[in-house]
Amino acid sequence: MFLLHLSDVDEASWAKAFSTALAPYPVVRQTDDYDPKAVRYIFVWKPKPNAFDGLDNLKAVFSLGAGVDALLKHPKLPQVPVVRFVDDDLSQRMSDYVVAHVTMHHRQFSRFQADQKARRWAQVYPPAAQETTVGIMGMGVLGQDAAARLRPLGFSLRSWSRTPKSVEGVENFIGADQLDAFLSGTDILVNLLPLTPETTGILNYETFGKLRRGGLAGGPVIVNAARGGHQKEADIVRALGDGTLGAASLDVFEIEPLPADSPLWDIENCYITPHIAAISSEASGVRYFSAILKAHEQGEPLINVVDRTRGY
Amino acid sequence: MFLLHLSDVDEASWAKAFSTALAPYPVVRQTDDYDPKAVRYIFVWKPKPNAFDGLDNLKAVFSLGAGVDALLKHPKLPQVPVVRFVDDDLSQRMSDYVVAHVTMHHRQFSRFQADQKARRWAQVYPPAAQETTVGIMGMGVLGQDAAARLRPLGFSLRSWSRTPKSVEGVENFIGADQLDAFLSGTDILVNLLPLTPETTGILNYETFGKLRRGGLAGGPVIVNAARGGHQKEADIVRALGDGTLGAASLDVFEIEPLPADSPLWDIENCYITPHIAAISSEASGVRYFSAILKAHEQGEPLINVVDRTRGY
Repeated sequence: MFLLHLSDVDEASWAKAFSTALAPYPVVRQTDDYDPKAVRYIFVWKPKPNAFDGLDNLKAVFSLGAGVDALLKHPKLPQVPVVRFVDDDLSQRMSDYVVAHVTMHHRQFSRFQADQKARRWAQVYPPAAQETTVGIMGMGVLGQDAAARLRPLGFSLRSWSRTPKSVEGVENFIGADQLDAFLSGTDILVNLLPLTPETTGILNYETFGKLRRGGLAGGPVIVNAARGGHQKEADIVRALGDGTLGAASLDVFEIEPLPADSPLWDIENCYITPHIAAISSEASGVRYFSAILKAHEQGEPLINVVDRTRGY
Repeated sequence: MFLLHLSDVDEASWAKAFSTALAPYPVVRQTDDYDPKAVRYIFVWKPKPNAFDGLDNLKAVFSLGAGVDALLKHPKLPQVPVVRFVDDDLSQRMSDYVVAHVTMHHRQFSRFQADQKARRWAQVYPPAAQETTVGIMGMGVLGQDAAARLRPLGFSLRSWSRTPKSVEGVENFIGADQLDAFLSGTDILVNLLPLTPETTGILNYETFGKLRRGGLAGGPVIVNAARGGHQKEADIVRALGDGTLGAASLDVFEIEPLPADSPLWDIENCYITPHIAAISSEASGVRYFSAILKAHEQGEPLINVVDRTRGY
């Protein structure tokens, strides 16, 4: 039996789609009348505290989110494999967001918008893409996809990751020892890291101060498309205020929705989107997890299983 | 002898670079004392009315601009070949501008910026790039470069040109007969046409009304990186006001600098830049025209000669 336990999304719609894809395999929802002992797989998004109660014969937890940091903190998460969603469609949408914001900052958008407001015709010519270095933190599926899309645009690229990640045309820096070297040549810093104890708060004032100065006319820029827990928002406010950062694009926040009294809202060169960089589509999720469930029922191993010590 | 006649740019700097590249071939400036009859090549940007006076032995005119519409209207332009600047570096910069503005509109930038001003957290998910069709008008060097860079981002692409232009992954529409069909499937219209009598004023209210509705949430978008003469600004104001257009990015204007009393300045979903999408770099220009001049002196034919009946 396959149990759906989804909050804040249309669980009924997902259930219907899974029932069709998996038939005759039984699919049930939280509110259905079912025997918890019969549940072998559970599909979760923002699980409630009692989500896993009584599921004594569970074989695996499927996570709708690509990031599993919140799920791994669930106090009653059973000791079974957690499968995360690796989604081509989600990678595409995430890269759409990253490319849009990187290119916007490279083209000195904040400067031209300020000039427009002042009805000022002042010709300055942005550098060619080659003259700007984009540094990507996190070279998993999302980071590699972003690099693959930024490269044909001509940007100089570098990456920073926990373990070596060799991608053609991207200079790779590894681990804490090489973080400073990575930052010192980066004009636009793109965060696509998983949220772990090691990466929590990594987007802080000290980090911003190590980015390259002089590459972009307005100062270095950050783009955070990963998790609010990666950033210290008080530090972002300070860095945008004193010119340590030229601009910031933030899709995620320490508290979401971003509180109405956050100073970030009013900062002109801080570009806020409400955690919409990428969402997993139902069609893609049903296809992905149905294939994994069917294969596992036929004796094949699970794929994309989370390493709990690593945190992703 | 090679004569430089450049306005609004650093002619002295170009002259020095050409002297080095062409030595011992003589290079002179407008203000130098020289015999007009000895001038075989002239390099021009915004030539004055008397620029060509007395140049009886001229072999060719070299144009710093990629667009030669203004030059071809010079009343005293001699009947010698006009060589236009085909510049990889300029193509890169132009594509930088096009990609930045296309991706910005695809990601519904205007909507999220309005939400930020209102401190409104309202989650809407932009479509994936595949679901958005970019239509490129003009498939010369610049149009083809833009297509080559937009394609790896995942956009659906179509083009419109005077003569057939086959580019992989781009659906080509040809001539006046197929303009309406081209427009009817286009969400974001990118203009990279040369300015000719046929293309003057092509960005008008009737054209805007033929673009696809329903593809982009805010309405169809135009991006004009070519010439101000392509657009009817009164029509753009009207179309942005009544929702026929969702947004516009304009780098060029009917009158430049854009007059301080233009209503375009104050329209929030009209993104104005002061004709800075792309500029030819001195290094690239010196390399290009020095090679052409040397080859021609050795008896080889000129390249990239303008067809005056066609206008580019």
